[in-house]
Amino acid sequence: MSLINSENISFNAMGKMIEEFNSYRSKMNDRIMETSNTNMKRFLALDTTTYADGALDVKTKEMLGLVASMVLRCDDCIKYHLGKCHEEGVNHAEMNEIFMIANLVGGSIVIPHYRRALEYWEELNKD
Amino acid sequence: MSLINSENISFNAMGKMIEEFNSYRSKMNDRIMETSNTNMKRFLALDTTTYADGALDVKTKEMLGLVASMVLRCDDCIKYHLGKCHEEGVNHAEMNEIFMIANLVGGSIVIPHYRRALEYWEELNKD
Amino acid sequence: MSLINSENISFNAMGKMIEEFNSYRSKMNDRIMETSNTNMKRFLALDTTTYADGALDVKTKEMLGLVASMVLRCDDCIKYHLGKCHEEGVNHAEMNEIFMIANLVGGSIVIPHYRRALEYWEELNKD
Amino acid sequence: MSLINSENISFNAMGKMIEEFNSYRSKMNDRIMETSNTNMKRFLALDTTTYADGALDVKTKEMLGLVASMVLRCDDCIKYHLGKCHEEGVNHAEMNEIFMIANLVGGSIVIPHYRRALEYWEELNKD
Amino acid sequence: MSLINSENISFNAMGKMIEEFNSYRSKMNDRIMETSNTNMKRFLALDTTTYADGALDVKTKEMLGLVASMVLRCDDCIKYHLGKCHEEGVNHAEMNEIFMIANLVGGSIVIPHYRRALEYWEELNKD
Amino acid sequence: MSLINSENISFNAMGKMIEEFNSYRSKMNDRIMETSNTNMKRFLALDTTTYADGALDVKTKEMLGLVASMVLRCDDCIKYHLGKCHEEGVNHAEMNEIFMIANLVGGSIVIPHYRRALEYWEELNKD
Repeated sequence: MSLINSENISFNAMGKMIEEFNSYRSKMNDRIMETSNTNMKRFLALDTTTYADGALDVKTKEMLGLVASMVLRCDDCIKYHLGKCHEEGVNHAEMNEIFMIANLVGGSIVIPHYRRALEYWEELNKD
Repeated sequence: MSLINSENISFNAMGKMIEEFNSYRSKMNDRIMETSNTNMKRFLALDTTTYADGALDVKTKEMLGLVASMVLRCDDCIKYHLGKCHEEGVNHAEMNEIFMIANLVGGSIVIPHYRRALEYWEELNKD
Repeated sequence: MSLINSENISFNAMGKMIEEFNSYRSKMNDRIMETSNTNMKRFLALDTTTYADGALDVKTKEMLGLVASMVLRCDDCIKYHLGKCHEEGVNHAEMNEIFMIANLVGGSIVIPHYRRALEYWEELNKD
Repeated sequence: MSLINSENISFNAMGKMIEEFNSYRSKMNDRIMETSNTNMKRFLALDTTTYADGALDVKTKEMLGLVASMVLRCDDCIKYHLGKCHEEGVNHAEMNEIFMIANLVGGSIVIPHYRRALEYWEELNKD
Repeated sequence: MSLINSENISFNAMGKMIEEFNSYRSKMNDRIMETSNTNMKRFLALDTTTYADGALDVKTKEMLGLVASMVLRCDDCIKYHLGKCHEEGVNHAEMNEIFMIANLVGGSIVIPHYRRALEYWEELNKD
Repeated sequence: MSLINSENISFNAMGKMIEEFNSYRSKMNDRIMETSNTNMKRFLALDTTTYADGALDVKTKEMLGLVASMVLRCDDCIKYHLGKCHEEGVNHAEMNEIFMIANLVGGSIVIPHYRRALEYWEELNKD
């Protein structure tokens, strides 16, 4: 959930959901950077470095972030990691297996989030 | 959360919230059936058979599904099971006792979901 | 989770897990009644009246309490409601359907709690 | 989450988010008072008395309610307690420390709720 | 949950639960410091600085940490913050109000954790 | 969480925690297979097939299962997936990055589970 990554994204080619998500997120991340205390800035910096390439590559880390977000049922977190998984080249068959693990581990309570995740994933893949 | 049950519902007589919920759910369930893998299809089939009449009748199972959805605070799951409870003839006094158990077990954090559940329940009972 | 209900239980005939659970619960409920404030006493009284016979019978309410406890993964709450379900005459086939709804809604994360619930349920049924 | 407190609030001076939140909450609290059973009314009364001035002052209790709402990720609960914290004179530096504890304890999954909380907090402080 | 704070604690005067908790926590914190990566060390450092005296004093922050731990139902986190609240001079009446807020917001599912918290709190107060 | 995988494990070479975990899990999985209904058996079969080699390899899937288990704070689920990750050759640096993502996303509330996970992971690596 880097505060920096989304800055260079061109909004023109995007679908409506993607644009709305990125636009609000970007606006509020700016407010956070202007108003938050030092500990919060460190927490957000840590959020960025945690997903950087390391012993595990970025693609694997983003899949881990996605499945964690799905079982915790956080739609905005799901959208963010779907966007990163798309950038990292996760394909449909791989995404379906992530969706399955999330629904199995988290239960049928995840299904409504899966519906919205699929809709967002399909919009990402129209670009 | 059967993928099949909502198909024969006439949208004409419905309230706005009910129609919007059913319409989006139906649209995305179709996308899921077209895109998901075998394991997911089995999971969704299991979701249907689990709520079928058995040692416990459908009404009891839907009440169980509802209270589980409320304490886990999933608004869409709540709406789905409210609709099924309505079909199964759960009356207001019974529903109030389910609402009470959900708020007691899940805590005051459930109250905002209870507000939305009550609004949806009242729309269901206008039909 | 009434503070009162367990008082008349004879510990002699009980299995070890049941006795340990009831004994600790009873001891700490006494400490709570001696130390807690008025609001807490009201909350605990409400916890008792909520499961009393009403529009829904006690058996149904205890099944609702059990499924809520399972999806929220609270082992002590599960044990308490298993004991009450046993008292209310829930049979094995009914219990298996409650277990199934809990695992389906809550996901595979519920399985370890289901294992412990089954062990406790079997001890209850040895009495 | 008192059912009573919001009644005297003038909607004129409020921001749009605050007005929408208070208006829907007020409408549905009225429906709850008209339709709910005795146990639920007692639960809601308890919700009010719990946050009353006592060994801990109202400001401290509202901060406790806010951090609990944030780690449980309930946006409506967060808005309610942000409003009460604002009334109790919580300042920006204090609020930032509450935000930090909530994000630290609850994890990055809280960040989207923090974004919405900050937006609401800034609207409260425009009044 | 500072990795440093517990170092100077004399184990002699402690009750059994307190000693067991501190001993295991201290042992594993040592293993974490010896094995973890830089991001994790930063996260743990942030965990310490977040609870330091600031716009809110340490006592208030520890109460916030406690209520967050209770509604998230983490027994070890509860024990840690109970210990810190005890050090900061939280009295019984204040603690009872924290317990009440946690049970109200988190629901009856918190009661088993409240039982264990009360037992630990009473051991802390025997010192 | 396959019901089958653990059958061929030799208990001799194992550490105490690993043996206790596998032994109880194996005993109760047997009881589940003897007592559960058809839907539950299908759910458990699905739990096995979901982690099978597919578009994502077993190692990746087990890492996904582990991070999901950590953010949902299920110690037994964590132990199971740690065992599978160990079998799949996840190394220390990779495991530390999974631990970090879990703590970051799930928050400091995950730390006590991380302590126990590290202890179990070190026992697995002594074999």
